[in-house]
Amino acid sequence: MTELHAVIPAGGAGTRLWPLSRSSHPKFLLDLTGSGRSLLQETWDRLSTFVPPEHIHVVTGPAHAALVQEQLPGLTSLFVEPAPRDSMPAIGLAAAVIEERSPGAVIASFAADHVIADVAAFEDAVRQAEAVARSGLVTTIGIAPRSPSTAFGYVEAGDALGVDGAPDGRAVVRFVEKPDAQTAQSYLDAGTFSWNAGMFVTRTDVLLDHLARLQPGLHAGLRTIAAAWDGPDRSAVLADAWPTLTKIAIDHAVAEPVSLEGGIAVVPGGFDWDDIGDFAALQELGGASSDGVVWVDADGLARAEDGTTIAVVGLRDVVVVRTSDALLVTTLDLAQRVKEVPALLKETGRDHLV
Amino acid sequence: MTELHAVIPAGGAGTRLWPLSRSSHPKFLLDLTGSGRSLLQETWDRLSTFVPPEHIHVVTGPAHAALVQEQLPGLTSLFVEPAPRDSMPAIGLAAAVIEERSPGAVIASFAADHVIADVAAFEDAVRQAEAVARSGLVTTIGIAPRSPSTAFGYVEAGDALGVDGAPDGRAVVRFVEKPDAQTAQSYLDAGTFSWNAGMFVTRTDVLLDHLARLQPGLHAGLRTIAAAWDGPDRSAVLADAWPTLTKIAIDHAVAEPVSLEGGIAVVPGGFDWDDIGDFAALQELGGASSDGVVWVDADGLARAEDGTTIAVVGLRDVVVVRTSDALLVTTLDLAQRVKEVPALLKETGRDHLV
Repeated sequence: MTELHAVIPAGGAGTRLWPLSRSSHPKFLLDLTGSGRSLLQETWDRLSTFVPPEHIHVVTGPAHAALVQEQLPGLTSLFVEPAPRDSMPAIGLAAAVIEERSPGAVIASFAADHVIADVAAFEDAVRQAEAVARSGLVTTIGIAPRSPSTAFGYVEAGDALGVDGAPDGRAVVRFVEKPDAQTAQSYLDAGTFSWNAGMFVTRTDVLLDHLARLQPGLHAGLRTIAAAWDGPDRSAVLADAWPTLTKIAIDHAVAEPVSLEGGIAVVPGGFDWDDIGDFAALQELGGASSDGVVWVDADGLARAEDGTTIAVVGLRDVVVVRTSDALLVTTLDLAQRVKEVPALLKETGRDHLV
Repeated sequence: MTELHAVIPAGGAGTRLWPLSRSSHPKFLLDLTGSGRSLLQETWDRLSTFVPPEHIHVVTGPAHAALVQEQLPGLTSLFVEPAPRDSMPAIGLAAAVIEERSPGAVIASFAADHVIADVAAFEDAVRQAEAVARSGLVTTIGIAPRSPSTAFGYVEAGDALGVDGAPDGRAVVRFVEKPDAQTAQSYLDAGTFSWNAGMFVTRTDVLLDHLARLQPGLHAGLRTIAAAWDGPDRSAVLADAWPTLTKIAIDHAVAEPVSLEGGIAVVPGGFDWDDIGDFAALQELGGASSDGVVWVDADGLARAEDGTTIAVVGLRDVVVVRTSDALLVTTLDLAQRVKEVPALLKETGRDHLV
């Protein structure tokens, strides 16, 4: 039995965290929580407590490869995608290469920009998911919902699976997209729904077999690239084949269709988790305001990355984020709409601010 | 008959315009309106169309003397107060020195930080006030109220005076302090009230005679300083006498008490005027937001003095002012409360930001 491999797709713009998150320095490279470590580094730290460093793989774009390697000096396996094609090609690339090297290995994929405080509970969930995955099921780790959130998709758990070493493993009834508020409340009340945090644990051969059936073109491309990966033709084959790969998320490519066939399991995670989707989430996580902010009948989140002094008069639940070249002012309520700002900046030709 | 002298007390912190206005660069030294000239320079420009430059006098503190002289290369008469003692000592110093040089001269005092667009109408009011002042009355130029403002004191006009060359000159019934909203509305309805803009036109001998009677200590100190002003002992006498002068505004020292004796006149000014008291006033004046502000369901005043990009999401009537070392966020409604920020900064030992 081979050891577990961890795969970290490090992508995503984090446009709702503008102006902190930029295309050149996206969310996963930032120390948003003030821990002194970036979200990517915290992901590494968390995984390397129970996964050997040489089994941790990061998949990222060419623009961020150098910074990823700099932030993770212990990283020995960096996959550089020529261009972003969503999560299925990214995870599939790592899966196909690992399958070439260690057939039937178990991989667990985790986003590079999520926050999890309780490492022991996290490891327990991963270990249980690994046990279920070895039995041949694609296994997701769900998150026990803290609120009727409409910002996440949900996974509905069915019967217990009875897999050895995985007492919490259950069959997945279905994946559901981000619900409306009323539906979200009914999910919370039901007690059988988890947030879908995009954590998937699977045998590489199982994943690739599903892909061969459901996305044969994508599967063929990944196999071709993987066969050449450890040889002299990697660059040429990658340049040739990568642009042909279907741009698709792992949820749509595998998780949803396979769940209809009973091939997906879930281990509901018993740990606090956050994807810091926006400044409201950062505030809830305790993402602190800068020192020395002057609040006059005011409160909220105020950060000056350039160390200058912010004063807020008479505004409640405000969000003020200042960098050396830009400034955002909004409210915690409207934090989701921040993504409109980089979109407008692009439209008006100010790509250097995005 | 000597020509008119203009006296410009250039003081006042402008704390409601923080962080633009600072103790080192107060409001009167700033180009708030985007005209390319500071408020002091605009005051100079306005007066020098009808007052000879050598008859324009500026009274300021030691911290600002160099910048005042730099901004006004044509200025030949700069009075440097050792320390601020409010408007009566400042204007009284200029009046006493001018009286030494040209007995019975007429002086007109104007704040350094007010905005007046219609110079012809302004000159007409000053000329009428000069004519009334020559008759022996201390004459104020009132401002026709545009609204029932509670931010200004008011002057109530009585009977016409019938002075030659001053068809609009009227006796002053009384000065009143900043009223409540209901009282302000009644003043506006009455039609006989003007805003008190602190513009006083008077013969120097008349002003000094009032002072001799009402503030004899202050009068004696000013006379002592004035007698030494053009000789070798100016510095020594000033250092000696200045700290003894009563700290008092011209309104309280002269205008109010003399109005009760019938010694004050008013010429209601027929020109637009603004003291840019706060950011709401600046916005009303058309003080523009910076270029390139990204407004998403938002509006208000947003200025980045350092040329950076500001984005505001979902806030109406907001005020955002960014300088290289500080940032203010508030609303137009709360613009008056901005002065609390420099006060709090001082309390917390951050004087360099004030």
